Amino acid sequence: MAPPEDGTEFTEEVKAAEAEKKPISTIVFVIAMQSEALPLVNRFQLTEDPDSLFPKGCPWVRYHGTYEDLHINLIWPGKDPVWGVDNVGTISASLVTYASIQALKPDLIVNAGTCGGFKAKGACIRDVFLVSEVAFHDRRIPIPVFDQYGVGARRTCSTPNLLQKLNLKSGKLSTGDSLDMSPQDEASIIANDATIKDMEGAAVAYAAGLFSVPTIFVKAVTDLVDGDKPTTEEFIENLGAVTAALDQTLANIMDFISGKCLSEL
Amino acid sequence: MAPPEDGTEFTEEVKAAEAEKKPISTIVFVIAMQSEALPLVNRFQLTEDPDSLFPKGCPWVRYHGTYEDLHINLIWPGKDPVWGVDNVGTISASLVTYASIQALKPDLIVNAGTCGGFKAKGACIRDVFLVSEVAFHDRRIPIPVFDQYGVGARRTCSTPNLLQKLNLKSGKLSTGDSLDMSPQDEASIIANDATIKDMEGAAVAYAAGLFSVPTIFVKAVTDLVDGDKPTTEEFIENLGAVTAALDQTLANIMDFISGKCLSEL
Repeated sequence: MAPPEDGTEFTEEVKAAEAEKKPISTIVFVIAMQSEALPLVNRFQLTEDPDSLFPKGCPWVRYHGTYEDLHINLIWPGKDPVWGVDNVGTISASLVTYASIQALKPDLIVNAGTCGGFKAKGACIRDVFLVSEVAFHDRRIPIPVFDQYGVGARRTCSTPNLLQKLNLKSGKLSTGDSLDMSPQDEASIIANDATIKDMEGAAVAYAAGLFSVPTIFVKAVTDLVDGDKPTTEEFIENLGAVTAALDQTLANIMDFISGKCLSEL
Repeated sequence: MAPPEDGTEFTEEVKAAEAEKKPISTIVFVIAMQSEALPLVNRFQLTEDPDSLFPKGCPWVRYHGTYEDLHINLIWPGKDPVWGVDNVGTISASLVTYASIQALKPDLIVNAGTCGGFKAKGACIRDVFLVSEVAFHDRRIPIPVFDQYGVGARRTCSTPNLLQKLNLKSGKLSTGDSLDMSPQDEASIIANDATIKDMEGAAVAYAAGLFSVPTIFVKAVTDLVDGDKPTTEEFIENLGAVTAALDQTLANIMDFISGKCLSEL
């Protein structure tokens, strides 16, 4: 392809190709819940910033440290100042992803957390998925083209070697701001061909996509949405064990990534 | 109330009280659709930034200019780079609000746009509402406390004089990422006691709330959600006329605000 007259696109392509060949150095984890984040903080002995990296008023917390040649930053959106619960959902996820990219210029973002799985699509409790594609299931805008914008489907960063080496399951992720699933959500999730559902993934992908920052999504199944147990009960029951499985997988992923460049993942 | 030992809260209170008495100078409009934004751009002869105020990659557009003693900034989240449609919805709204606050330190944010109205609650086509309270209707998290975080209800900046002088209607606004309304959305909107629904308001309120930036919400009714016509059809049919009514109201609001401080609104 010939470069455009001002050379901009050419320069961008060269930069992207160079980044593909440079060893990955700075990693940002975006993790919505403290209970999902703390095992990783402890494992990598990450320390909390004494002075926040983020503007005053943001409840977001960065933990950071090094592991082999990797600069690890774990961003947890913190607790809601009014309600005191974790800032879950798409708005906080997109805001912290945006702000972390501006502050840290990461080579790779890892959005990790728990999710609901569909046993009809092959998901089991404690499975850890590496996501192949993300989309939204609660942004219905029935006007031509706006409908597809609402779904916002996008492929994730391709990591075939990581998938094979760690023997992870691959599947599509559908994101929405509710823990439960309405019939309309279900229809959209089926249309998205999703195996798992969460409350942040597609929002992280959107914010990272603005700046073309490669992002992978590592999601561990706490509950079967099409299973026999109520979602909330099953989610709370399995959170501890599944978080441990997620932590182990993330450690394995860091071992795999260390010393490699993007094109080797 | 006694100040805390480090004096932080006291200082913040003093600052807030001083801001209340300072004439309003810098205003940020957050307007999701180009068709809603352009009448205001033309009326106030606002000019588009030749170089974006925002990081490279963001499709967000700032128009700015002065009107009497006011520095007016109109932020439109632009078009989606993939789909080419306006970046409507909560994620873009929260991101542009966050980034605009960081870049411009506004004295006041005005989130303006169209909305759906409920005739059972007294809304009519072309009504312009000044919002008294915002909440979300599509963030169902049925875990104690998380449920209230999901709804995220908050009162807006109180402006009794503005409401009375301009003879606007007052009502509660419920926000969600869908243009249509599922039965679950409807139940939540009823629980929120909302007269109007939109796709951005509560997200703008959330991002502005992180930094305690006073925000008002001016919403004009394009369609009656509980009326006889399909929402999409009615929305498209009325968009032009309602946008003109909105534009006129926003001009009247600027005239009212000019020379006043927050405590006079």
